[in-house]
Amino acid sequence: MTILKRDIKVALTLLLLVNCFLLKGFQSEKYQDVIPVPQQVSVAEGLFEVNEDFKISIQGDPNERLYGASTRFLRRLSGRTGVFLKSGYVTEQNNGANGNFVIEVERPGELVVGEDESYELEVKRDRIFLHATTELGAMHGLETVLQLLAFDGATPVIAAGKVTDEPRFPWRGLMMDVSRHFQPIEVIKRNIDGLAAVKMNVLHLHLTDDQGFRVEVKSYPQLYQKGSDGQYFTQEELKTIVSYAADRGIRVVPEFDVPGHATSWLTAMPELGSRPGVESYSMERNAGIFDPTLDPTNEKVYEVLEAVFTEMAAIFPDEYFHIGGDENEGKDWDANPEIQAFKEKHGYKDNHELQNHFNKRLLKTLTALNKKMVGWDEILQEGLPKTAVIQSWRGIEALLSSAEQGYQTFLSNGYYIDLMHSVEDHYYVDPLPADHKLTDEQAANILGGEATMWAELVVPTTVDSRVWPRTAAIAERLWSPQSVGDLKDLYRRLEIISLQLEELGLQHITSRNMILRKLANGQDSEALKIISDLTGPLQGYTRNPGGTMYKSHSPFTLWADACIADAESSTTFRFAMEQFMQNRSEDALASLETSLELWASNHAALAEIVKGAPLAQPAYELSVKLNKAAAVAHEAIAYYKSGTQPTAKWLESAKNTLEMAGEQVGRTELRPVEDIEKLVDRLTVNN
Amino acid sequence: MTILKRDIKVALTLLLLVNCFLLKGFQSEKYQDVIPVPQQVSVAEGLFEVNEDFKISIQGDPNERLYGASTRFLRRLSGRTGVFLKSGYVTEQNNGANGNFVIEVERPGELVVGEDESYELEVKRDRIFLHATTELGAMHGLETVLQLLAFDGATPVIAAGKVTDEPRFPWRGLMMDVSRHFQPIEVIKRNIDGLAAVKMNVLHLHLTDDQGFRVEVKSYPQLYQKGSDGQYFTQEELKTIVSYAADRGIRVVPEFDVPGHATSWLTAMPELGSRPGVESYSMERNAGIFDPTLDPTNEKVYEVLEAVFTEMAAIFPDEYFHIGGDENEGKDWDANPEIQAFKEKHGYKDNHELQNHFNKRLLKTLTALNKKMVGWDEILQEGLPKTAVIQSWRGIEALLSSAEQGYQTFLSNGYYIDLMHSVEDHYYVDPLPADHKLTDEQAANILGGEATMWAELVVPTTVDSRVWPRTAAIAERLWSPQSVGDLKDLYRRLEIISLQLEELGLQHITSRNMILRKLANGQDSEALKIISDLTGPLQGYTRNPGGTMYKSHSPFTLWADACIADAESSTTFRFAMEQFMQNRSEDALASLETSLELWASNHAALAEIVKGAPLAQPAYELSVKLNKAAAVAHEAIAYYKSGTQPTAKWLESAKNTLEMAGEQVGRTELRPVEDIEKLVDRLTVNN
Repeated sequence: MTILKRDIKVALTLLLLVNCFLLKGFQSEKYQDVIPVPQQVSVAEGLFEVNEDFKISIQGDPNERLYGASTRFLRRLSGRTGVFLKSGYVTEQNNGANGNFVIEVERPGELVVGEDESYELEVKRDRIFLHATTELGAMHGLETVLQLLAFDGATPVIAAGKVTDEPRFPWRGLMMDVSRHFQPIEVIKRNIDGLAAVKMNVLHLHLTDDQGFRVEVKSYPQLYQKGSDGQYFTQEELKTIVSYAADRGIRVVPEFDVPGHATSWLTAMPELGSRPGVESYSMERNAGIFDPTLDPTNEKVYEVLEAVFTEMAAIFPDEYFHIGGDENEGKDWDANPEIQAFKEKHGYKDNHELQNHFNKRLLKTLTALNKKMVGWDEILQEGLPKTAVIQSWRGIEALLSSAEQGYQTFLSNGYYIDLMHSVEDHYYVDPLPADHKLTDEQAANILGGEATMWAELVVPTTVDSRVWPRTAAIAERLWSPQSVGDLKDLYRRLEIISLQLEELGLQHITSRNMILRKLANGQDSEALKIISDLTGPLQGYTRNPGGTMYKSHSPFTLWADACIADAESSTTFRFAMEQFMQNRSEDALASLETSLELWASNHAALAEIVKGAPLAQPAYELSVKLNKAAAVAHEAIAYYKSGTQPTAKWLESAKNTLEMAGEQVGRTELRPVEDIEKLVDRLTVNN
Repeated sequence: MTILKRDIKVALTLLLLVNCFLLKGFQSEKYQDVIPVPQQVSVAEGLFEVNEDFKISIQGDPNERLYGASTRFLRRLSGRTGVFLKSGYVTEQNNGANGNFVIEVERPGELVVGEDESYELEVKRDRIFLHATTELGAMHGLETVLQLLAFDGATPVIAAGKVTDEPRFPWRGLMMDVSRHFQPIEVIKRNIDGLAAVKMNVLHLHLTDDQGFRVEVKSYPQLYQKGSDGQYFTQEELKTIVSYAADRGIRVVPEFDVPGHATSWLTAMPELGSRPGVESYSMERNAGIFDPTLDPTNEKVYEVLEAVFTEMAAIFPDEYFHIGGDENEGKDWDANPEIQAFKEKHGYKDNHELQNHFNKRLLKTLTALNKKMVGWDEILQEGLPKTAVIQSWRGIEALLSSAEQGYQTFLSNGYYIDLMHSVEDHYYVDPLPADHKLTDEQAANILGGEATMWAELVVPTTVDSRVWPRTAAIAERLWSPQSVGDLKDLYRRLEIISLQLEELGLQHITSRNMILRKLANGQDSEALKIISDLTGPLQGYTRNPGGTMYKSHSPFTLWADACIADAESSTTFRFAMEQFMQNRSEDALASLETSLELWASNHAALAEIVKGAPLAQPAYELSVKLNKAAAVAHEAIAYYKSGTQPTAKWLESAKNTLEMAGEQVGRTELRPVEDIEKLVDRLTVNN
């Protein structure tokens, strides 16, 4: 058995292929499917058979969360293999028992940043051995085991081998915005399970914003009663979320975004606002940056914040507490002479310094509550104590600079999964780029990163399809060796994990199909699915122009909501196109032509469906465009094959056709158009 | 406009067809899609257009639940039509406002049996008017409106018409067993929404049984701590369920099944058990009837029950409280000399009388808590006070007899949806058959019925596919005029409501597809779906022989769990077969032959899939059988067409083939085999 650093991934791949050939089995290839890619993997000969006698022994001194995690592991193992295990529940009775799956844990883990999460997994023919310092590491190992499951004929097996693994960064999270659209507890729970499956360890809840104050507060109940449209977490639910997450090795970091993004607070308590003469605010239904801001000169504001934070500190045991602090443009402060006077009196030269004053007050409150204050980039002002932690949404430079200045920091810029960019755009964003200039000590300030799921354009039924499986790519960036980065292989593995994530209740696949079924109005929705798999929602902030096209109460049950960022067939088409342009191989050409034919035949089916399904109209219009683009592709391929140069007229016409084909329909756009454009460009450059 | 009693459904259908022709619109046909069928319907000329200005006015004096219900209505209206409504939230600001949808309610409704649930809906070209005595009726009306939505070209519309409606029975419920497998709060919530959509008004929660004690009890916390494997509702969650249901016009009736079905109680508190010398009990993992029983001679038992009931009475405001009482076979009582002595001392001649003693004690406790006691048939013993209420699982005779004796009663026999019988078997079960011999006063004791979803063989991911859309058929039986009963039309409407129920989060369609995707192991699952749509889980109690093949922790992620009772294609095939046998029409024949060809072509696809998908093996084996049965069908049709009689040898061989084709695979069986058998039978009888 040879230990292999994943840094030499190509070598490993070759070795695995050779091994597989020698072993006459493909089961050991499953070691290549694991996401995030482990630090070290080696494969050996032989297969461990999963049968009804599979039994877990717990050894050592784990935190009790391991029992529940092991029981859930058994249920998933059984669910995936179809084996009716005799052993159904793992309890203390499994301690030291004579099982064929031994989990050994040295000491109970603590849910703190930097806790040991490493594990070592050894699979032999007759026995699996999972060793870890803490049960948190062991639980990551259980996820790896589930990803190694294969079949030998009809027998479920795990190929012999060894994994030595630990995370690259200690803070690997997902931020969920539950304010813009509320996401009830069941959505949170299933996403926690998803995070655990890809070895993430932080759930950051963005609990308040202009569009909703989403927690029960006993000291000032008007906050949720008037600021949530009845959609909020009770304190019991918050406790349930925290303990559900802790059971799965996930820390929960609460965020109360102040002093801006505060319309919901002010709808409930207008007396805390900054703009003079305003007696009432009303809930924000649009998306964007709004003026309502807490008044940093009003003692009542600090009273309320202290009360809210004190209640929440008792519910969220995590050491970190997030105060937001972003995008306060200070317009309402400028409009208020008393606030301006206060600013002058204290010698603050601008609103940033005033906000720094505000932040320092909160820091004091949080410090008294034994919490470390976290905020977005904007909180980093002259004199901010080094105990504060910066979440960077502005970019990698801001992140590196915070670390250099001695602040703990983690990255979200580049991980805005709500913007519907391709996963490729997120995958290569590294919180600690190879060319960084930081000292080791400074580099250690970079804790990791968080995928950020802002919720202006998602509802509970659609949010999973924005988060998954893409977040697994970010999880890999934060866990795996820096060198890991084969995009095609990532897509391959995302497809595998995607199906596995469904077993946790995640609805990223089902919700899309459900919407398409509805749009088809009782007809077969397959033809819609085919177009949807070539279409993506408009990217960045373009889907919702001005933040006003969609309101909080707008429908998210339509065509764009059934489309995703990394539409499957568009990725396949892209890879085939790239390959064709590289080598003009017959295979790549055949793959392209298969796609083009499918689009044509699908159009006929779609034309039938749309007659009885008005809401499917966007799919039909896109199909018209797609087939026009396909015609251009056909001709371009013909030029390419024959080695002749198209005429300027053809190029002009092709360009126009593709431009029109690329126009949005139903807030979505066709993905392959861009690839066909590249092909046409290529024709004129170096054919 | 003509008012039409639904009793003359055929006439209505004809009239609608005529109307549609005259109106040159099919939108008014939507009045025929409503499920449950309303009491009176008439259609008029014209279409009401749903546009962004759609606005609700509330008039009169409703309970505030109408505001939330109206807001949810707007969201669903918007979701289905794609219209971006300006109006997003209905609050008291909508009172008397100038909307084009006027809801007028006379007085606040109360969630009690027999409350007025009637409504009158009038749709005109420019305005919709919904009148009801209580908001409970108005909310039923909102569901009707959603079922009337249609399109005129791309414009969402509701055809003009009038509906006058009220329920036939006041108790229309679903019992969910959350003990055999726990169903967490999100499952309960989405099913409550489903119930409201089909105008049901009771959720009965079977909270304890041998396999789990599923509620937090503060006085005796060991009950849930030791009796639930950690799976239970907190009291906060129970309160949330009650208020969520109340917001939707649904009463919640809790059941604590005693003195039998008590293993979970006794696992936690063995001192309450009846069998002498038993120091500990352990959680039941099998299904069936078990011995552990509370000791009716032990005062501690009454203390505990009083404490539990008192806590629960405060959480469940409903007037009715269910004590179960079924299937106590008394073995442990017989085995205990002290219990026998007690029985003799009190002159009880058998265990039934002893249980009656027990029940009377509980009745006293519940009466003091202002609750009416409900129990299953077995509680009806000599001397049971008339305030008790009987839920009949034994049959219609028991139901009628209870009513005759003066007990309030409702029916569950015939509504056991967990047994996977065809919906046809439930649809024609009437709690008050036309030929009943009861007086009007006695008949009024028959409150209605409950679909009963026992949970031995379901988990949260699969339960919806057992409950929906079938429960809509039972809802119709309990709401609509007795004469409603066209099976084909029921199936047609179930298909429509099935898609609509998805918008409430119900997973009856998605979970099946998810399981099939998993079984296909990453391949396209369409070929599996085709077989699944012809297959049903074994019916009655045959899927789980002896109650021991499946344990609580067995996998419910396999082939049988993707199959449902009323597999779509099997129903289509059955109707085509019946029609062919009736009239030998070319159309019916063509439909049959299309099916047979599909089965053959699908087999090839399946053979490919199963190579890489061991868990899809049952589908493949069934496909082999199906195609053998299809060959018989082909030959039988040929005989049928030619009018010749098959030979005895052919019949013998056909019979054998079909018998083998009908054998179970993976705890499921092919549905069309029975229909082909009928065809073959027919050949020998009166060809």
